[in-house]
Amino acid sequence: MNDGQRARRPGGRSARVGAQVHRAVTELISERGYGNFTVGEVAARAGVADSSVYRRWGSLEALLSDVALARLNARSPMPDTGSLDGDLRTYGAAVAREITGPDGLALVRLAVALSSDGPQGLKAGDALFAERMGQLQSMLDRARERGDDVPGSLDALAVLDQVLAPMYIRVLFGMRLAPGYVDELVDRLL
Amino acid sequence: MNDGQRARRPGGRSARVGAQVHRAVTELISERGYGNFTVGEVAARAGVADSSVYRRWGSLEALLSDVALARLNARSPMPDTGSLDGDLRTYGAAVAREITGPDGLALVRLAVALSSDGPQGLKAGDALFAERMGQLQSMLDRARERGDDVPGSLDALAVLDQVLAPMYIRVLFGMRLAPGYVDELVDRLL
Repeated sequence: MNDGQRARRPGGRSARVGAQVHRAVTELISERGYGNFTVGEVAARAGVADSSVYRRWGSLEALLSDVALARLNARSPMPDTGSLDGDLRTYGAAVAREITGPDGLALVRLAVALSSDGPQGLKAGDALFAERMGQLQSMLDRARERGDDVPGSLDALAVLDQVLAPMYIRVLFGMRLAPGYVDELVDRLL
Repeated sequence: MNDGQRARRPGGRSARVGAQVHRAVTELISERGYGNFTVGEVAARAGVADSSVYRRWGSLEALLSDVALARLNARSPMPDTGSLDGDLRTYGAAVAREITGPDGLALVRLAVALSSDGPQGLKAGDALFAERMGQLQSMLDRARERGDDVPGSLDALAVLDQVLAPMYIRVLFGMRLAPGYVDELVDRLL
């Protein structure tokens, strides 16, 4: 997301355009998969001019990254239940809902496709990933400040390895997430 | 991989064509990422006619799946070290080498892109995934037959969740795999 866009966001028409373009991107990803469409196709579906997409986002990759970030933050905000156990279960369940939803796989593919080593060599995915890791670390720091009993080795990467990675990989490989699966992962972590 | 191809494999010229086409696919994936090239471009780079690619593989998806399967099996065969601990560390290390190699990320992306829920709606990834899970399960069954002390809950999916998934996700998100990382994952699993 660039500053120009952040500044424009609150505006009425500009906010509408933003929402229309985001929706168009999400639909195209679900229908065709990441990377199988152009800025022109996004603009056409959103009913805006190509030029306004380029002016606002600069490139398809920047737009895709903006969509993914906005969706991740809207769909699985960091919970604050008062206990680390509760926070992790709530967060894990939100992520599970997010990635098993109608276009959840598309979203995970997008996050992966935007990873910094991706074919587009983007930095976009770094923001996405740093955002997620930062949210997790604050959850853990808050628990320690509260005096919860938090294993010394438990950091954001441990949550990535033991809770997020198994969910992402199962979804990426087309498997279901069984009821209670997230709780099993959190139990194992704690 | 179709039977026709398997039957033709041993043949001299046909084996050469197969190797040239596989190499062309691997290069194109590394350069452009999965899905960003056509059968025509593969054929041109391999120096063969489009028609022979279509005759042998039928579609780009079938060819991509064949390449991924051949590479996975060639690069991380299931070890038989005499102990489950040794097998898992050897296998994990082989997978780590495979996915952190020059075109390892491309291979992981390919496996993911071929997952059955993928935009192409392929079954191709199922073969890839079933192959891997089957290899893991035989390793575990062999250990149990040998009388090794194998936790009752330890199955191929547990290895996927706790050893393979963290490695895949870290690579997909552009992170390094630190020395000793695979052993930490195996220690945690056992």
